[in-house]
Amino acid sequence: MVGYKFMGKAHSHAYKDVGMFFETNADVVMKAICGRDEQGVKAAADKFGWESYETDWRKLVEREDIDIVDINAPSDAHKEITLAAIAAGKHVFCEKPLALNLADGREMLAAAEKAGVKHAICFNYRFLPAVQLAKQIIDEGRLGEIHHYRATYLQDWLVDPNFPLAWRLKKEVAGSGAHGDLNAHSIDLARFLIGEFDRVIGHNRTFVKQRPIPESSEGLSGNGSAEYGEVTVDDATGFLADFKNGAMGMFIASRFATGRKNHNTFEIHGSKGSIRWDLERLNELEVYFREDEPNLAGFRTINATDASHKYAGNWWPVGHAIGYEHGFVHIVYEFVKHIMEGTPFTPTFLDGVRCQEVLEAVDLSIERGAWVSIEEV
Amino acid sequence: MVGYKFMGKAHSHAYKDVGMFFETNADVVMKAICGRDEQGVKAAADKFGWESYETDWRKLVEREDIDIVDINAPSDAHKEITLAAIAAGKHVFCEKPLALNLADGREMLAAAEKAGVKHAICFNYRFLPAVQLAKQIIDEGRLGEIHHYRATYLQDWLVDPNFPLAWRLKKEVAGSGAHGDLNAHSIDLARFLIGEFDRVIGHNRTFVKQRPIPESSEGLSGNGSAEYGEVTVDDATGFLADFKNGAMGMFIASRFATGRKNHNTFEIHGSKGSIRWDLERLNELEVYFREDEPNLAGFRTINATDASHKYAGNWWPVGHAIGYEHGFVHIVYEFVKHIMEGTPFTPTFLDGVRCQEVLEAVDLSIERGAWVSIEEV
Amino acid sequence: MVGYKFMGKAHSHAYKDVGMFFETNADVVMKAICGRDEQGVKAAADKFGWESYETDWRKLVEREDIDIVDINAPSDAHKEITLAAIAAGKHVFCEKPLALNLADGREMLAAAEKAGVKHAICFNYRFLPAVQLAKQIIDEGRLGEIHHYRATYLQDWLVDPNFPLAWRLKKEVAGSGAHGDLNAHSIDLARFLIGEFDRVIGHNRTFVKQRPIPESSEGLSGNGSAEYGEVTVDDATGFLADFKNGAMGMFIASRFATGRKNHNTFEIHGSKGSIRWDLERLNELEVYFREDEPNLAGFRTINATDASHKYAGNWWPVGHAIGYEHGFVHIVYEFVKHIMEGTPFTPTFLDGVRCQEVLEAVDLSIERGAWVSIEEV
Amino acid sequence: MVGYKFMGKAHSHAYKDVGMFFETNADVVMKAICGRDEQGVKAAADKFGWESYETDWRKLVEREDIDIVDINAPSDAHKEITLAAIAAGKHVFCEKPLALNLADGREMLAAAEKAGVKHAICFNYRFLPAVQLAKQIIDEGRLGEIHHYRATYLQDWLVDPNFPLAWRLKKEVAGSGAHGDLNAHSIDLARFLIGEFDRVIGHNRTFVKQRPIPESSEGLSGNGSAEYGEVTVDDATGFLADFKNGAMGMFIASRFATGRKNHNTFEIHGSKGSIRWDLERLNELEVYFREDEPNLAGFRTINATDASHKYAGNWWPVGHAIGYEHGFVHIVYEFVKHIMEGTPFTPTFLDGVRCQEVLEAVDLSIERGAWVSIEEV
Repeated sequence: MVGYKFMGKAHSHAYKDVGMFFETNADVVMKAICGRDEQGVKAAADKFGWESYETDWRKLVEREDIDIVDINAPSDAHKEITLAAIAAGKHVFCEKPLALNLADGREMLAAAEKAGVKHAICFNYRFLPAVQLAKQIIDEGRLGEIHHYRATYLQDWLVDPNFPLAWRLKKEVAGSGAHGDLNAHSIDLARFLIGEFDRVIGHNRTFVKQRPIPESSEGLSGNGSAEYGEVTVDDATGFLADFKNGAMGMFIASRFATGRKNHNTFEIHGSKGSIRWDLERLNELEVYFREDEPNLAGFRTINATDASHKYAGNWWPVGHAIGYEHGFVHIVYEFVKHIMEGTPFTPTFLDGVRCQEVLEAVDLSIERGAWVSIEEV
Repeated sequence: MVGYKFMGKAHSHAYKDVGMFFETNADVVMKAICGRDEQGVKAAADKFGWESYETDWRKLVEREDIDIVDINAPSDAHKEITLAAIAAGKHVFCEKPLALNLADGREMLAAAEKAGVKHAICFNYRFLPAVQLAKQIIDEGRLGEIHHYRATYLQDWLVDPNFPLAWRLKKEVAGSGAHGDLNAHSIDLARFLIGEFDRVIGHNRTFVKQRPIPESSEGLSGNGSAEYGEVTVDDATGFLADFKNGAMGMFIASRFATGRKNHNTFEIHGSKGSIRWDLERLNELEVYFREDEPNLAGFRTINATDASHKYAGNWWPVGHAIGYEHGFVHIVYEFVKHIMEGTPFTPTFLDGVRCQEVLEAVDLSIERGAWVSIEEV
Repeated sequence: MVGYKFMGKAHSHAYKDVGMFFETNADVVMKAICGRDEQGVKAAADKFGWESYETDWRKLVEREDIDIVDINAPSDAHKEITLAAIAAGKHVFCEKPLALNLADGREMLAAAEKAGVKHAICFNYRFLPAVQLAKQIIDEGRLGEIHHYRATYLQDWLVDPNFPLAWRLKKEVAGSGAHGDLNAHSIDLARFLIGEFDRVIGHNRTFVKQRPIPESSEGLSGNGSAEYGEVTVDDATGFLADFKNGAMGMFIASRFATGRKNHNTFEIHGSKGSIRWDLERLNELEVYFREDEPNLAGFRTINATDASHKYAGNWWPVGHAIGYEHGFVHIVYEFVKHIMEGTPFTPTFLDGVRCQEVLEAVDLSIERGAWVSIEEV
Repeated sequence: MVGYKFMGKAHSHAYKDVGMFFETNADVVMKAICGRDEQGVKAAADKFGWESYETDWRKLVEREDIDIVDINAPSDAHKEITLAAIAAGKHVFCEKPLALNLADGREMLAAAEKAGVKHAICFNYRFLPAVQLAKQIIDEGRLGEIHHYRATYLQDWLVDPNFPLAWRLKKEVAGSGAHGDLNAHSIDLARFLIGEFDRVIGHNRTFVKQRPIPESSEGLSGNGSAEYGEVTVDDATGFLADFKNGAMGMFIASRFATGRKNHNTFEIHGSKGSIRWDLERLNELEVYFREDEPNLAGFRTINATDASHKYAGNWWPVGHAIGYEHGFVHIVYEFVKHIMEGTPFTPTFLDGVRCQEVLEAVDLSIERGAWVSIEEV
């Protein structure tokens, strides 16, 4: 694994716990973790339970005892490491976004396909039981024809103007702001649930244009220094979408939505029913069926922790909530099974590319002030 | 009508609006309103739309042009006025509680039955569309055998120790505190929905035992004077109940439930389903059916404003909320129809008596520290 | 009053009840109601409590005993009646939309201003206590700088493809579909709460393009005949907006949002706090303040029925819900007070025009596929 | 560790993950797991990550390389194993209920105190961040004087009459039904949050008195055989309580609450504020403060996942939910720290005993039909 911060911790936890709750037909062994700072990566290896560590990812990807390379380093490093890992014949599990831009993403996909290695992109929210239930309901045709899709992904950690200029706020490292970080998840869920985008048009804002430069380059919440630097990514991006199936879409991602902490939601209306989900109550799914008796129809709040709900039965009895990190355990489980048993698996790099296409089409539409077709990018 | 304060206003509104939204086969004419204070009652007559006013209820009940006497004066006046109205051959619509005690209530019931007049007690919450829907679901057997009934009726207007010693806090005028005011509603709804009580046991509290005597005897929120008087009713009463059908019951009424403004709720669990309702969201009913597919079962939040819901179609299109006072319009509509067309009607004085029985059994159980059977009182 | 259907009933109720709950310094007398069908309008006059009726609105607007003309006839009749009423020196209270198009609306506004009569447009939702509270919070600066405004107005009565081709689905009578009917309310609330629009871009759909022609031209739910006609208005319209104050906006109106009955919502995020409201729970306002202690901050669900909330104290004690129709009582109260006492009043025809500008700018943006500035229309 | 079923899995997970998210100043090593069935325990050891296994708990408690014995075997085995572990000088972490009856519990407590070993009882819900926040708010006096405490613990897995006669339904093994299983948690939370019980009175039911005997003695959901056996524990128990601080309490536990899956809730009203919590939304706490401005007061829904909330900062950024099992990680963390560093720790066996006292007083009150003082048992 390359990377050992927030995502490194979430991924490590997934490898650590997957065998305890799922049968993967494989012994997942946590061989080595990699980071540039030796002290930091050594501590992480100890704490997270990795057998060894490396400070040079080039060494890591060449180790004989490694089958899967997990990449959760900052976005600007994804491409180079991925291509090297593929060249070394490793399967690759890459954090989103796949790459800083579409061209890089396509190159990574092509390389993986050519090499015949297995590849995954970590759109973890697909793997929550409530989201799986939404998918099942739609695939069974129980919502009928889809008319509306609306998604929000709202956080508020930037609303404080003294929050420092972290690397996530610099375009050259992060690629994008709320759009690439949060809309990426919403776009992937929309594609997963109702299919491909046709065209988009958006708008965005950087509400606070200058922020204090953090004294330590690592810190997210350090005391702001006296110096200020330019924020070069969006604080919020919203867009309208038309889907290929005729549905109307509406998306908003923001780091300025005061009071919303992790408000990743979707609401879908079809000719036969509707669905609503919210990551802040991730174990619940709200579902409405028109076929219910008229005086008894209403949104059902389903506690998706029953043994009848995908993955839920592997954890605890009904009513016992699971948390955010469980989605990572499930995606790791599916990817390992995919490698070992050839079971079908998405999301792959192709989904990463498709998502990137929509992100870039939105950015282009903002530049142009007019709709952009996905096929154009 | 006798009385022109809070309930007088709510009842007046019902008579005023009933003809606009319902077909009663009668012209409801607001003949006369009665109160001791001439200035006050005259103003109320003007404002509420009564043709005339009286300052002596004895005159009112003897007027030839009146068919129905509505009594919403303080509780200690109910009995005398009711008996006189019955003696004059009037139909009587009486606010709850029916009387200050069970013996008086039984006397009123006997008089009404003997005289053959129509009689009603104003348990208005029965007549909200969502509660009617609950009743219908239960009567159709869709909850199966009832196992649990839990009710709360929670307010918080007494939690401020400087709230003055209003008449509602004196036993000789009000009869009872939260118990008679709030549990009375909960007991009636329980009887309406699942049937008769078998035995009860309770406890109660008067958390603030002395309050400032209001300078004006009318005021509810006047500046407290320097003098304090004794609170002689309960601030809160809770009790357990066994129902004749075997269900377990749990009730709590309080005027000290900080943050709860009018939290009149019930939750019912049966062998086939469950129901939950809350007066603060009076247009909604939550319903759960075990017969739903296991992975899709959940509490449905039904917006009980559809034309398929009783009374709702007389107002506005689906989704347009009705309010608290609409229940009074509906009960007046049903009572007038009952008088004009002989349609079945409850709640009558009998329901007032039954409710009083449970209230008194609870009080007796508190004295004794042991269960009291309803049959005993 | 001209018109006696859904809105005629809601307005009549307001005139009937306003004097009972508010002090207007005027005796509101319901002089005459007007409609083309004598039998229908006579019945309505009786039922709603009007002293007389007319079948020709020209007669009505010339009657000497009338001060205010209330127009809630279908949209295509607004202009002609309004101009005649103004010419006759009457004050005018007009249902939304003000007119079928912007030019007509501007003409009506100019006529009213020139004649010096008082004029109002019935954006009733402004007058609910929870919405007034939202306005107060924003005006006091407690949300700080506004970053985001999102609104939905979702219904589902058209999702059944057999729902007949009612007049509301014909452009020549209704002017517009969900956009003019529902987005009009959302646009007005946004203007009321956070100010003027700068530019917009939208998309729309007519999901079901042909519907059965109703056998009776009146009926909304008649058995569809064998013949089908063209739906000439939108079933749903969504749009992005930039506000003059820099906020990002997002709006969606639909009659195809399965399960949503009257889901008129707004959510506003500012630098200091956030607000959320939903018409289906119209007595509640959710508010978040950043200034709350970090570990205790959360959206507060405020029950806006306290005496401290505008209008609420005129009805019932705290916790006793009011309903949809109360907004009409409040707007009538304010308009009458405005006429009698010269108190400030909005929304006037000017607000009707401003709203129409945004509606038309959205339509133009849909035609062009690009952003349209409000100033352009 | 003795036991390897539901609780064995939850406890194992806690030992496995604690070091990754918390600094305990100790290397927690999972030495050995113990169970009677060799095949079963061996599989569990492999899956959960234990170094070795034993089939005789007597051997386990005598192993030199073990410092802590974790006991989550069925309730009837707690006493014997605990006493042996204490005798061997081990620290003991015991699942609730501490013992089958109060006398046994007191014996265990006395033994542990005499031996000077550290002891804990697994009331895991204390250790969720939202519950910790509730505790902090109360301890800081922000609710003022406590007037009301209401708790429910509702499940519905027994409402199906064909659910087999599992060991949990036999008094000789389980000791008690819903009462000991669920009310035990509610009683402990009440003691933790507001203090000691004074007296109680209850009622209970066994709604389904006979159930099919499972063909396999292990199975919980096996096809019922043709034979039926007697259910000897309660399906539901409710009770009223008076607390020593004067608060009124109300408790209900049921396995027959259709639609409620794990509805462990408490609501507390004090003179200054109120709190509400529900395990089904375990990351949220609802709090109301009377000191808020009257027109802005409302229950706040606090997302207790912020770094300012106890334990939450050790997991993920704000808004990223944790799940049921995290409570076990936290209690293990605190117990290990207690052993290593002598930090204060509750709940100990004393809390197990206190809880058992209340449980037994309720049972006694049911027998007697009258209130029972806790001091009496």
